[in-house]
Amino acid sequence: MTIKFEKKYFDELANLKINKPQGQLSGHNSGEPFCDEIYNFLKKKNNNNIFKQYEYLNQLLKQNSSKKTAQERLELFKGTFGFIINRGKTSLKKWTPTAMFEEKQNDTADILFIDDKVNTIIDVKTKNISKKGQPPNIISAYKMAHIAESIINNNDGDKIDINYIGIDWELNGNFLDLKEIVIRDLFKITPEKIYINWAAALQIQFDVSTIDQNYTKSKKDWASDYLKTYIKSVQNRKEKLDKNFMKPFLYLLDH
Amino acid sequence: MTIKFEKKYFDELANLKINKPQGQLSGHNSGEPFCDEIYNFLKKKNNNNIFKQYEYLNQLLKQNSSKKTAQERLELFKGTFGFIINRGKTSLKKWTPTAMFEEKQNDTADILFIDDKVNTIIDVKTKNISKKGQPPNIISAYKMAHIAESIINNNDGDKIDINYIGIDWELNGNFLDLKEIVIRDLFKITPEKIYINWAAALQIQFDVSTIDQNYTKSKKDWASDYLKTYIKSVQNRKEKLDKNFMKPFLYLLDH
Repeated sequence: MTIKFEKKYFDELANLKINKPQGQLSGHNSGEPFCDEIYNFLKKKNNNNIFKQYEYLNQLLKQNSSKKTAQERLELFKGTFGFIINRGKTSLKKWTPTAMFEEKQNDTADILFIDDKVNTIIDVKTKNISKKGQPPNIISAYKMAHIAESIINNNDGDKIDINYIGIDWELNGNFLDLKEIVIRDLFKITPEKIYINWAAALQIQFDVSTIDQNYTKSKKDWASDYLKTYIKSVQNRKEKLDKNFMKPFLYLLDH
Repeated sequence: MTIKFEKKYFDELANLKINKPQGQLSGHNSGEPFCDEIYNFLKKKNNNNIFKQYEYLNQLLKQNSSKKTAQERLELFKGTFGFIINRGKTSLKKWTPTAMFEEKQNDTADILFIDDKVNTIIDVKTKNISKKGQPPNIISAYKMAHIAESIINNNDGDKIDINYIGIDWELNGNFLDLKEIVIRDLFKITPEKIYINWAAALQIQFDVSTIDQNYTKSKKDWASDYLKTYIKSVQNRKEKLDKNFMKPFLYLLDH
């Protein structure tokens, strides 16, 4: 079964509200409960397909319990999807059925939809619409360059999807009310429109609800176009370091 | 009166504890109350000299109420100290006695010690000793390059000090207990030992309690040595962007 996450799919969540978290509202303490709600909702609809990243990793390693060395386990992570979700050799080596992976804030995916044709990486991004803020960090531009490299070299872009669920919410008394929910497909974003913030941990940043969705070519084309944008952005950053951050101070070096 | 902040000066605070803030402990909600305690302590000892940055700016503009244009007000911010605390032309233009400056999280100084000989910028950095974390953001390396430039060009380094108060604390039931308090002088840090994190908003980062304090030359020499370190760090960053972030992907551009 292949699934297309569309706005319609989430209609039942239109009136979703969560309890206002204790203490000062932050991106973290407001984002997490919404993410849990989305996870529970998806899990109820597709119990066998939906996992948190660590849950899937644990299942994969349990189902391959004969593979015990890091090298054998690495074999389970071939291809682009494996590259995205793999926590690395050291972690794989340490894993045992009694010391399994736990939830980790910096895992790439909030939620996975596992399927025999297409695996979908789902990331939930929440926004307090009463606050004007910077667009959120989406994913490391450097990691995305490696993902693009993998898509080109393995030619397996048709086996993955990367989707963002954007949740706009508003504080309403003791609740955070969901105001809008949007679904965005990473591979429909025209790569030229992607912004990389090199001073914010090399993160791709965009506002989920307003990001472009007009790219129509294949995932391999997307990967190639992304790398062009990425390399241009590295070059721009180098020039900016030179022009804005270095040159203005060179005249002082003889003092 | 000139004051030297030394460890001894803070002896009375040895048993300081603050109430555990509501909600999940964060750098922000634990740091702020400790900073307030330090401010109140210093204010009690030196009422006429101690200000939060916005308080001093308001007093300065009130005492010069005849100066009404941004240009006239900019004249009040000559020299290195003025450069550090100035909030910029647009803010100066908007200021009126009925629309004064308010506290702002990204002001350079947490606290100012104002004096006719030496003005001291004081920044309070707090650390949960039970957690291993990255060293804190200290100040933008780019802003510091401008400060160094100003010290050289105005030759007024002897009129400013920049001090860091490091507070190590530990959760103890419903309280955060102060475990250690240290005072560090920016201009005693050997500039070569300063680390700049270009991917974290260009911030200088160091652990306050363990940072070097062995520099003995003048502030002008420090400024000059800092700029050498800074420029070398820009160059390293450019090379890293090239070598690690760009070159590995160039072979893919023909796909």
